[in-house]
Amino acid sequence: MAFNLLKGKKGLIFGALNDKSIAWKVAEKAYEEGAEIVLTNAPFALRLGDTDELAEKCNSIVIPADATSIEDIENLVDKTMEHFGGKFDFILHSIGMSPNVRKGITYDNLNYDYFLKTLDVSALSFHKILQVSRKKDALNNWGSVLALSYVAAQRTLYGYNDMADAKSLLESIARSFGYIYGREKKIRINTISQSPTQTTAGSGVMGLDQLMDFSNRMSPLGNADAEECANYCIAMFSDLTKKITMQNIFHDGGFSSMGMSRRAMDVYSKNLDECCEFREIDFKDITHRFEEF
Amino acid sequence: MAFNLLKGKKGLIFGALNDKSIAWKVAEKAYEEGAEIVLTNAPFALRLGDTDELAEKCNSIVIPADATSIEDIENLVDKTMEHFGGKFDFILHSIGMSPNVRKGITYDNLNYDYFLKTLDVSALSFHKILQVSRKKDALNNWGSVLALSYVAAQRTLYGYNDMADAKSLLESIARSFGYIYGREKKIRINTISQSPTQTTAGSGVMGLDQLMDFSNRMSPLGNADAEECANYCIAMFSDLTKKITMQNIFHDGGFSSMGMSRRAMDVYSKNLDECCEFREIDFKDITHRFEEF
Amino acid sequence: MAFNLLKGKKGLIFGALNDKSIAWKVAEKAYEEGAEIVLTNAPFALRLGDTDELAEKCNSIVIPADATSIEDIENLVDKTMEHFGGKFDFILHSIGMSPNVRKGITYDNLNYDYFLKTLDVSALSFHKILQVSRKKDALNNWGSVLALSYVAAQRTLYGYNDMADAKSLLESIARSFGYIYGREKKIRINTISQSPTQTTAGSGVMGLDQLMDFSNRMSPLGNADAEECANYCIAMFSDLTKKITMQNIFHDGGFSSMGMSRRAMDVYSKNLDECCEFREIDFKDITHRFEEF
Amino acid sequence: MAFNLLKGKKGLIFGALNDKSIAWKVAEKAYEEGAEIVLTNAPFALRLGDTDELAEKCNSIVIPADATSIEDIENLVDKTMEHFGGKFDFILHSIGMSPNVRKGITYDNLNYDYFLKTLDVSALSFHKILQVSRKKDALNNWGSVLALSYVAAQRTLYGYNDMADAKSLLESIARSFGYIYGREKKIRINTISQSPTQTTAGSGVMGLDQLMDFSNRMSPLGNADAEECANYCIAMFSDLTKKITMQNIFHDGGFSSMGMSRRAMDVYSKNLDECCEFREIDFKDITHRFEEF
Repeated sequence: MAFNLLKGKKGLIFGALNDKSIAWKVAEKAYEEGAEIVLTNAPFALRLGDTDELAEKCNSIVIPADATSIEDIENLVDKTMEHFGGKFDFILHSIGMSPNVRKGITYDNLNYDYFLKTLDVSALSFHKILQVSRKKDALNNWGSVLALSYVAAQRTLYGYNDMADAKSLLESIARSFGYIYGREKKIRINTISQSPTQTTAGSGVMGLDQLMDFSNRMSPLGNADAEECANYCIAMFSDLTKKITMQNIFHDGGFSSMGMSRRAMDVYSKNLDECCEFREIDFKDITHRFEEF
Repeated sequence: MAFNLLKGKKGLIFGALNDKSIAWKVAEKAYEEGAEIVLTNAPFALRLGDTDELAEKCNSIVIPADATSIEDIENLVDKTMEHFGGKFDFILHSIGMSPNVRKGITYDNLNYDYFLKTLDVSALSFHKILQVSRKKDALNNWGSVLALSYVAAQRTLYGYNDMADAKSLLESIARSFGYIYGREKKIRINTISQSPTQTTAGSGVMGLDQLMDFSNRMSPLGNADAEECANYCIAMFSDLTKKITMQNIFHDGGFSSMGMSRRAMDVYSKNLDECCEFREIDFKDITHRFEEF
Repeated sequence: MAFNLLKGKKGLIFGALNDKSIAWKVAEKAYEEGAEIVLTNAPFALRLGDTDELAEKCNSIVIPADATSIEDIENLVDKTMEHFGGKFDFILHSIGMSPNVRKGITYDNLNYDYFLKTLDVSALSFHKILQVSRKKDALNNWGSVLALSYVAAQRTLYGYNDMADAKSLLESIARSFGYIYGREKKIRINTISQSPTQTTAGSGVMGLDQLMDFSNRMSPLGNADAEECANYCIAMFSDLTKKITMQNIFHDGGFSSMGMSRRAMDVYSKNLDECCEFREIDFKDITHRFEEF
Repeated sequence: MAFNLLKGKKGLIFGALNDKSIAWKVAEKAYEEGAEIVLTNAPFALRLGDTDELAEKCNSIVIPADATSIEDIENLVDKTMEHFGGKFDFILHSIGMSPNVRKGITYDNLNYDYFLKTLDVSALSFHKILQVSRKKDALNNWGSVLALSYVAAQRTLYGYNDMADAKSLLESIARSFGYIYGREKKIRINTISQSPTQTTAGSGVMGLDQLMDFSNRMSPLGNADAEECANYCIAMFSDLTKKITMQNIFHDGGFSSMGMSRRAMDVYSKNLDECCEFREIDFKDITHRFEEF
């Protein structure tokens, strides 16, 4: 696909580490759709990843920035505007990290310096990017800003740890700043709550493979992958979505609206059957009319 | 427990079929807590169930009424006010029935006369009871009205069929009428979204046992049973909850806020392990700082 | 804009009455974006509206159908497939009508035959269209189905009456059928919760102008209009959104995520100031550290 | 009222500054209902407030603790267990403070050290209290923990600033820890989302009086006051609510489920009328049957 949906638009993309990254796919698609882009990541991540390779493919530049540092973000926004020769139109925030998860510290034993670090890296960074962009008047009116989130912001999944709280905070920041940036500059701010995805970052979560299998069987369309997520990001950056703001949109094959699917129950109950007897239910038996449900 | 929480209060209870019914437990507890009650059910259900036995235990009377018939409800409200010598204070709606479920008709093959019947019995009946009560000015100011619901109103569970849609409608009616009855008479209207419960009505749902097992293992406190639900209903009828209205409150051991628990995943993944290899995740491996999550 | 986003796709559009209709704008845009379309509306509405004019503009045909009649829908789907020479890709449901609203009957005095009619026309019609389409295998895999909704499905707005309940039911049907059609054919089903819009249908709602003003001032981006809604529908019909299903997405300028905006409060409090004294709040005054919030 | 609902129960209450505090009312009611309690607040707040007076009334003691300090919380929990001669049953967290709000710094100009302080005081403190309590095994099985929240966690209200984000984080922590403490000890953790309340803490929020008026007119039951909130807290600490966990329950007179009330619109539109002409809507005019809504 290539529709020229982002022709004439310019954007800044955080977090494209390697070709498994959602941000990587977004950068590729945005470029295909006619956008000019600037890539950024933390200096440490830039050494580890392949961002330079992506920059070459997308005719882009890479500007290192620690997204928790106001100074770095100020420099980043300045350089980005310099590169573009003016304001730009969209931002993707795809940043998350929990030192507690990384060190295997469980949620009932959190290190609070780490917890604050999780929040600073994964959520406050979003506010900082927005605040700096607004102060520098870096975004064109009717611009679009996205951050990637996960259903753990609403529902507890064991092992997701303090990243769940960080995602709740991230979604709240999107609403709070969406109000301000919307009324002033018509800039929209949304989060996309994506299926669990096999990225380098996602790998830190305990038992991810089983969770992905469960999530996949629960979702009528199956898990969404990084490329599909990128497609939706393109739609959200395009002018087709100008009046959507302060929303968290589930891009997850339906998972968030499922309570139980037959496919997931088939796996679940196969095991159950081995340990427990289930009484048969006979629909014909139940013939009375009114009853408490 | 017996705290005299409902001393001086009078209430009307729909749907107490037998001692497995949630409404049955509510009636018992309300009586224990000092309330006077009137019981009602459909004539058909009264023949099938043991409501008379309950009436005797609770020093109550039974007034037959088809909750879809305005005439029956009018007669019911009149008789109830006559019995109480005036207005009353609370109502429990515990009514639900789907002819489609009963006849084993799946959701992709619904009979629409049955679908309308499901909605009429399970949801419109609630509106009818409220509308008649309001017209007859049957409820004291600061009265409390409850209907029982299920998480299927928000999330799809296979096999729950058109009852899911009926519960959504029921919860909407609670909000819509809650506004009107609240502003005029300070009467609050709420729904309680209860764990799957082994009642006669619940039995109609396909695969209920497996679902109950899954639900139980997903819920940190386990499934809530009928008696626990009744306790919460008592709290909601008491003066401790006067300012809660137009809400759907989950009484479900935490199920509605769970995405995946370890206990449920242990059962789920036991089978998975046999068919698929899971790559081991090594937390130490993941050492980079910024990354897309 | 014209991106060829729907090139090669075919779709069926319900409810394009006149050029104020959202469905009308969707038809125009879909055609511009390369789709072939078929238009339908109730025979009565076709006499009243300008659908033929639209058909001419969009190189389309008009097939009359009462969306509450299975026979009509069967005929419609057959004729549509005949016209397209096979399966199609998307459906827009933009149908709603309440006899209670139309006749000025308030929510505390509902006529229940009318209430069932409201539900049948505004919500069950969606199920019927989906059920018939599935039985006739009318939709290509990865097709996309949309219905238009309103925030009244979640929150009570006085005067919206039983349409609020109908929209709740509609959104529930989207989830319930989304599960089935998703797992089988990868077809996604979503609802779009649109700002109040000055359509012929919207006009039936009491006090719409004031509500639209309030809604507009509450929404940081202002109310979304019919054309903007149509743009988003195009994105949802395109392949950019393949993994979004069973969702209700707010296309409302941010209204649904607002509790109170300064712009709305400015209007609201102007009057207040005249009748009540407001004590000044002095931030400097509040110097203690811990406190209950 | 006094029902002996908490007879035999022991609890720890944070944040009772003065007799306007919700925590103050909770302490009084808990004592009336038969509970033994321990009061705590920050040393600074203790000097400012009247907590000693409350302790005397409730036959309680006061233990100073900075709820952001693990050491203080450890000491607090030890002393509390010592006082009670063992484990206890409930905790109320009523703590919130934003240096940004206090210093009049707006949301588009946040100081990030202050933002982290807001989160630490208003949200992480809750995790710290839970983590320390769990490590010391301080709570009896089936204990109940509450924190006070506000609808700003879900919807943006201008002027509420970074407290909105803190409340989102607080509610997420309640879910995340609710899972762990629930599965292990059957301890439930919930937040109560209370109407805006005229407490010392609430006073810091910009334009609170107007907001309270709007909120009051939007809510069919009117705003809930501190005493009514305390009543609901008692119900949530009692054994009537044993299976509710990981929930945020709105205790707000219905505000959270309202989109627009007639009472609020009357104020709003009176002003509007002065500036704009509204076209009259004539229901009779709208006679067509099917239409896009």
